[in-house]
Amino acid sequence: MKTDVKQIYRGSEKFFNQEVIIEGWIRTSRSSKTFGFLELNDGTFFKNLQIVYDDNLINFKEIEKLSISSSIKVKGILVPTPEAKQPFEVKAIEIEVEGNSAQDYPIQKKRHTMEYLRSIAHLRPRTNTYSAVFRTRSVLAYAIHKFFQERGFVYVHTPIITASDAEGAGEMFRLTTLNLDNVPKTDGGKVDFSKDFFGKETNLTVSGQLEAEAYALAYKNVYTFGPTFRAENSNTARHAAEFWMVEPEIAFADLQDNMKLAEDMMKYIISYCLEELPEEMEFFDKFIDNTLLERLENVIKSDFGVLTYTEAIDILKESKEIFQYPAEWGMDLQTEHERYISEKVFKKPVFVINYPKEIKAFYMRLNDDNKTVAAMDLLVPGVGEIIGGSQREERLDLLKQRIIENGMDLEDYWWYLELRKYGGTKHTGYGLGFERAVMYITGINNIRDVIPFPRTVKSAEF
Amino acid sequence: MKTDVKQIYRGSEKFFNQEVIIEGWIRTSRSSKTFGFLELNDGTFFKNLQIVYDDNLINFKEIEKLSISSSIKVKGILVPTPEAKQPFEVKAIEIEVEGNSAQDYPIQKKRHTMEYLRSIAHLRPRTNTYSAVFRTRSVLAYAIHKFFQERGFVYVHTPIITASDAEGAGEMFRLTTLNLDNVPKTDGGKVDFSKDFFGKETNLTVSGQLEAEAYALAYKNVYTFGPTFRAENSNTARHAAEFWMVEPEIAFADLQDNMKLAEDMMKYIISYCLEELPEEMEFFDKFIDNTLLERLENVIKSDFGVLTYTEAIDILKESKEIFQYPAEWGMDLQTEHERYISEKVFKKPVFVINYPKEIKAFYMRLNDDNKTVAAMDLLVPGVGEIIGGSQREERLDLLKQRIIENGMDLEDYWWYLELRKYGGTKHTGYGLGFERAVMYITGINNIRDVIPFPRTVKSAEF
Repeated sequence: MKTDVKQIYRGSEKFFNQEVIIEGWIRTSRSSKTFGFLELNDGTFFKNLQIVYDDNLINFKEIEKLSISSSIKVKGILVPTPEAKQPFEVKAIEIEVEGNSAQDYPIQKKRHTMEYLRSIAHLRPRTNTYSAVFRTRSVLAYAIHKFFQERGFVYVHTPIITASDAEGAGEMFRLTTLNLDNVPKTDGGKVDFSKDFFGKETNLTVSGQLEAEAYALAYKNVYTFGPTFRAENSNTARHAAEFWMVEPEIAFADLQDNMKLAEDMMKYIISYCLEELPEEMEFFDKFIDNTLLERLENVIKSDFGVLTYTEAIDILKESKEIFQYPAEWGMDLQTEHERYISEKVFKKPVFVINYPKEIKAFYMRLNDDNKTVAAMDLLVPGVGEIIGGSQREERLDLLKQRIIENGMDLEDYWWYLELRKYGGTKHTGYGLGFERAVMYITGINNIRDVIPFPRTVKSAEF
Repeated sequence: MKTDVKQIYRGSEKFFNQEVIIEGWIRTSRSSKTFGFLELNDGTFFKNLQIVYDDNLINFKEIEKLSISSSIKVKGILVPTPEAKQPFEVKAIEIEVEGNSAQDYPIQKKRHTMEYLRSIAHLRPRTNTYSAVFRTRSVLAYAIHKFFQERGFVYVHTPIITASDAEGAGEMFRLTTLNLDNVPKTDGGKVDFSKDFFGKETNLTVSGQLEAEAYALAYKNVYTFGPTFRAENSNTARHAAEFWMVEPEIAFADLQDNMKLAEDMMKYIISYCLEELPEEMEFFDKFIDNTLLERLENVIKSDFGVLTYTEAIDILKESKEIFQYPAEWGMDLQTEHERYISEKVFKKPVFVINYPKEIKAFYMRLNDDNKTVAAMDLLVPGVGEIIGGSQREERLDLLKQRIIENGMDLEDYWWYLELRKYGGTKHTGYGLGFERAVMYITGINNIRDVIPFPRTVKSAEF
């Protein structure tokens, strides 16, 4: 019976002493004169399956010489091995070679650096670490969909190509089909975008929020989950030019509801990964970050804290900690501040709310103090900010005023303003950087190692 | 108790004669001197909830005058109405106005054209048709994830920004951060892409297939689900510049396995929508396409047909049907041919396999006849092609030869070729245009009506 390694691990008893057929790739191979062992990984499961073969195989010599990563089909009997390290093994009856791997296969048994493995991004999912990371990425993505869909949220594909800029700023990638060798110009000497594909200047989106708001005001509860882009020239371990973002938006709801949703979601997606991927999570805890499981269990058990920005500044000022950037009311919180508050003061995830309006986006709802807006950032130990959100300004006059104050053009926002004109309601939402979440749940600390084929400054390989 | 309209419809008995609180938008309003009726939609459900109120309300006059789409909060008692058209209604105790809608609300009770509604894409999900379409889109997306995840497939986010071109052709959008007013040039007078963000020429992806293959050769079963782009200047009801694509890729599998997967997936996702969205599906059948339910039920019940391209050409030649393009071996099948075969000959979905290599992509596996490749297109009644796929060429030498024959550069495909060098296996996959699937399942016949904010030639509004 053709089966896969996951089925065998998850229900081994029913396969014991049965004939099984497994197809996969050789991870390790060792042999002596008359017998040999293969560790086979078929991609369906984190762990390998041990194959034992001997010189009764007609192609014994061929099998013995196979390189790492060769693909084979094994027919054999699954036998329990209660005294061995592994719980069971397959005694091979037949091994068929599907595809030989060349001797110069670039991943050998020795430990390679992650930098090196990034240069072979097409092969790195065949290593333990990346195999675990990208399976976790997949399961986490599904957990997010499951969480929202089970609660009746409508998934909205907001546009990737956009003629507007959600944040009112942010460096964007321009998109064009104009001939760059000879850019068409208007009589005034400017680039003639009327000749471009869309007849105007277009960019890659930095956020689907504004469009998601339109849908929240029709469906009440919606979310986006798609790629977003930043053309920022920052070569750090936390920034990529292309990354995925999750943006729920809920109507008839305020900042309290928003915090509740974010807390529920975080607990749900972490629990889901812990339940679905015990082998991977144990591996991350053992080899990547040995505070990981404790930290994640703590998130699930805690009631998340809440404090205002003003309270946070007071705590930072009164603390004896020495910060690179001394805290001052009006400044944006730095990662050092965020980590101090979540790690040292609260020792759990904490929402900081009500930031000065000057440091936040135009669409955030002005509080009655006229100085702060109903923003919320979720800070988590070990990382700092993982979620940013706000209640949105639903009052048409105030929203117009904020657009003007920010030097933006009211006309560009005609439809966004209309959402307030035709049955607007209070509404709220947040953004979760998906890669940040993958990093948080795996303990991996470079964003390049949680994206299959990362795009960063000066790098768009594969 | 705060609840939503879906909960009431799905479990109305337990709410009967209870106090409920519902928030939503007014779809219709009529009143006489002392009482009135509101149809309230809260976005959680296709159907409206009827609210009855009378002049015992302190704000009776205000409520009576509310425009369509105003948002309100209603407290009242849910009462069964066995003699009325609707199964129950809410007798209002209190109605609070959340957001007034202006009198010039652009969607009125009369029937608007879809063209007109496209011009107000931020409001159109508040209409019956679009509300049903975009909820179906969301549920269908989830069905796809669910299908693959339940079968252990790994979801891979293949890159959107790419320096390669999966199809070896295809018109692409260029991405740049260069100053178009003054494009930097090399000494030779060419555009100096080394100064661009990624240090090279980059485009928006047309397919994630090649990268998905790398992951299939690590995880065995993977899928992508993300946006893809075509800068084609074709202004038709079936083409958009930005659309979503689903691309499963499976290793140790051939074209038979691929067809089985496609058939299972189609049946699963259609069944899922029929089960989850009975009200929406009934609406589409009644108002959009009254052959819809019959057609979809037929897909679920049928064993999909299979025939070769050569057999298809023979059938077309022998038929008495007059085609705009007479069938000839070597030509690509036109929609008229595809529809004839699936609608008239097979009367069910049918796979056409083994196309001439000249009309298919370089990566498709050459058949032993040396003339055809192991391609498959799934044709469905009412639409024509909905899925295109193939077994991939896993033999390194033959793949190289095909790349050269196609005038492409081997070096550009170094990593793709390495997948064959290091433990390649037979593998196969297909692409499902997600919007085509939404159109198929809703009966909507213009792609602009199944994308929240569509991007087409000369159009990138919102």
